[in-house]
Amino acid sequence: MALMLNCDLGESFGSYNMGLDKEVFPHINQANIACGFHGGDPLVMVNTLALAKEYGVEIGAHPAYPDLVGFGRRSMNCSHQEVRAMVLYQISALDGLAKSSGQRMDYVKPHGALYNDMMAKVEVRLAIMQAIKDFHGDVKLMLQATPECALHLKEAADYGIELLFEAFADRCYDDDGKLLSRSRPNAVHNRENMLAQVRQLKEHGTVTTVSGNILKVQADSLCVHGDNLEGVQAIEHIKALIAL
Amino acid sequence: MALMLNCDLGESFGSYNMGLDKEVFPHINQANIACGFHGGDPLVMVNTLALAKEYGVEIGAHPAYPDLVGFGRRSMNCSHQEVRAMVLYQISALDGLAKSSGQRMDYVKPHGALYNDMMAKVEVRLAIMQAIKDFHGDVKLMLQATPECALHLKEAADYGIELLFEAFADRCYDDDGKLLSRSRPNAVHNRENMLAQVRQLKEHGTVTTVSGNILKVQADSLCVHGDNLEGVQAIEHIKALIAL
Amino acid sequence: MALMLNCDLGESFGSYNMGLDKEVFPHINQANIACGFHGGDPLVMVNTLALAKEYGVEIGAHPAYPDLVGFGRRSMNCSHQEVRAMVLYQISALDGLAKSSGQRMDYVKPHGALYNDMMAKVEVRLAIMQAIKDFHGDVKLMLQATPECALHLKEAADYGIELLFEAFADRCYDDDGKLLSRSRPNAVHNRENMLAQVRQLKEHGTVTTVSGNILKVQADSLCVHGDNLEGVQAIEHIKALIAL
Amino acid sequence: MALMLNCDLGESFGSYNMGLDKEVFPHINQANIACGFHGGDPLVMVNTLALAKEYGVEIGAHPAYPDLVGFGRRSMNCSHQEVRAMVLYQISALDGLAKSSGQRMDYVKPHGALYNDMMAKVEVRLAIMQAIKDFHGDVKLMLQATPECALHLKEAADYGIELLFEAFADRCYDDDGKLLSRSRPNAVHNRENMLAQVRQLKEHGTVTTVSGNILKVQADSLCVHGDNLEGVQAIEHIKALIAL
Repeated sequence: MALMLNCDLGESFGSYNMGLDKEVFPHINQANIACGFHGGDPLVMVNTLALAKEYGVEIGAHPAYPDLVGFGRRSMNCSHQEVRAMVLYQISALDGLAKSSGQRMDYVKPHGALYNDMMAKVEVRLAIMQAIKDFHGDVKLMLQATPECALHLKEAADYGIELLFEAFADRCYDDDGKLLSRSRPNAVHNRENMLAQVRQLKEHGTVTTVSGNILKVQADSLCVHGDNLEGVQAIEHIKALIAL
Repeated sequence: MALMLNCDLGESFGSYNMGLDKEVFPHINQANIACGFHGGDPLVMVNTLALAKEYGVEIGAHPAYPDLVGFGRRSMNCSHQEVRAMVLYQISALDGLAKSSGQRMDYVKPHGALYNDMMAKVEVRLAIMQAIKDFHGDVKLMLQATPECALHLKEAADYGIELLFEAFADRCYDDDGKLLSRSRPNAVHNRENMLAQVRQLKEHGTVTTVSGNILKVQADSLCVHGDNLEGVQAIEHIKALIAL
Repeated sequence: MALMLNCDLGESFGSYNMGLDKEVFPHINQANIACGFHGGDPLVMVNTLALAKEYGVEIGAHPAYPDLVGFGRRSMNCSHQEVRAMVLYQISALDGLAKSSGQRMDYVKPHGALYNDMMAKVEVRLAIMQAIKDFHGDVKLMLQATPECALHLKEAADYGIELLFEAFADRCYDDDGKLLSRSRPNAVHNRENMLAQVRQLKEHGTVTTVSGNILKVQADSLCVHGDNLEGVQAIEHIKALIAL
Repeated sequence: MALMLNCDLGESFGSYNMGLDKEVFPHINQANIACGFHGGDPLVMVNTLALAKEYGVEIGAHPAYPDLVGFGRRSMNCSHQEVRAMVLYQISALDGLAKSSGQRMDYVKPHGALYNDMMAKVEVRLAIMQAIKDFHGDVKLMLQATPECALHLKEAADYGIELLFEAFADRCYDDDGKLLSRSRPNAVHNRENMLAQVRQLKEHGTVTTVSGNILKVQADSLCVHGDNLEGVQAIEHIKALIAL
């Protein structure tokens, strides 16, 4: 089972820098590129696409709720039409910028609260699927590999779109296949446990949950983080492990 | 000589309504649709495109400086790369939304201060032309028909892009072919003078300037305004005149 | 029982006009003035304060979540510190502008989703009360008159702040003293029922709920709306009724 | 002659960090605190004020044009009323937050393009002075010490406001007393020249211009920068030098 590594990138904004994008790009396969609503601006997007081209990294759109000060991390109650329109707008913007430099957008991975709402609320998920179905090109939707993936595949089939599933390297899972809340102890793995989880995902397609159960998690990609040097080092370790 | 009518539309934002779009659409040929930077939001754009489809109106992107509170009317000193990126971002967003509803974007007409800077500053104009050249589809650039149109055609040829020229129905011209500043008396024509100017543009391809000179103004399209009922009535009169 | 009339005003933004402020001001007692987060901008605030001065209307700050495109109508999950800071920021801005024209801010009435969250969630309500307690001047907090008003008075006493209670003229109440959701039939009264509700509030301090029960609603002020001409006429009728 | 050190602080925004505020605060006397238009948000302002309190640093408001993506570095053509209103709004917000934590705002130093426009355009300068005159408290205006300081003092006297003058430690001056454009070679001093300039300012109240002339520059405060570790070290050196 070949696991890709995906990372949120291009989240700088104007004079504000965020993330060690240049350090991360050499090690990953898929870049989730911010589209201007929670981070990113047109020039940041252009520069991030250039890095993706340089390193041969796949391009994903990373659309979000319109909440710059909250970095897209706060759920906003939006109608089906609003979610569909904001996703289409953002992925279209990235797609056009990508094509202008001879690249193509491969997938869409919603950001922050929009991602969480997609996983938790069928109406948000279907609005996003509708956007991707209505988009004029072939792009996949990336969501979390959970015990509900059969349902999600069924929904996607109804919309005629393809899915990518991702797992998390550094987050502890609960028995429902959800990520343990960050407010809980040991919600975020230390280095050793993270690498053990990656190894288990790669070799067995499973994770060991917080209560010690074994849970099937079939993922196409691992979500990694490049916010700081420690995160970049973790990515290098994960990459080496996956390449074995 | 067939003159089209173009109008700024889709400039509402969230709960804020602007312009009598529904009243204007039946009478015009080309809709300059705001792209979210000076007005418009994703859902407004979707709804405006639907109206354009209903009335068979051509679609133009109407990109602007990022200045919502100033409605894109204030010049902002941006680099070549910034202008190129912000134009590409906005026209890509509209293009993607248009394609998602089976429509196509035909042209780009910059808004407000970006339009004025395009006409006045070669570096802004070339950054916009670069964006349109780099855009992955065929779109024309609309700018003002002035005595410098030969220069503009030459620049456009260098970038391999096509131009559309527009004239103004209700604005008095100075002897340089520029619009008389709104701060000057009679800068904006009354109904009678406006219709006389339209007739002259249609029949002779000229305008009579503020000082009484005759100036050649070869335009593909007339810019009209649908901010209020008086504007909509003016559009109807102009349309009737052009159709003769 | 003297009932005041309060109305949301100053919600225009840049080139976007909203509300018939000039028509409303002559008829009301209290202006809830937007502070720039859901509507309003510094110049709109200055101009709205000038109208309040001209008509001798009390000034309330109308702070909101930072959500212009959503007009502050979408709940945003914010921490105690975030709510406290955003309320203090907005009411300080309005207070300073008011003082610069020799006026004083009398009260604070949160807007939209922040108002709803204040009524529904104790943690939001206490963060707002903390902001008002920490504010350097004496301002009251306006909230909805509900069966929980004793609890709210107790909370306010703990913070050493004063409350104003408002009732709604045009909205049908449910048996819990909450406003019937707008999605329900007859949630918004017609003119006749609205005036009957105002009369009942004035004379008996009660409303008749959707199920026909009589509910005590002791209000200092009535919330009225000036979005359109019909709303302004309703305000005039209510004012005439109250003055009897 | 006692020189104060002032530094732009509190320019983080939401999840975006900017500047080494915690490292800078122990070494400076005056904090120019962003007010939310080019940087800063309500919670960042609260936290920055807390640091100012902890280190006994004077508080200055640092208002800017409304341009987050451009970090307030782009001039925007605003009317007298717009500049007055945006300055009053921002300084009122900071003032209120300061008072809520028992602090007081001492001065106003415009940011970026608003600062540059204040120095270059009398209409912008007078709009800012009008705002400070109309503000309900006593605050000084900080501007650059230039050969035009007598004019500026005269203007300030007309408005009844007090001025603070600042000089720049690390920037080379031209013969007009203006800062040499950053695009010019040696526009920014190396450490040695910076310290020499500080020494000269302290001992003689002069600078040596790019062409070798001696220019009188009587400053109350020196502008220093805490963007990175090198900047913080420079501040420590300057502080040691001034304290001699």
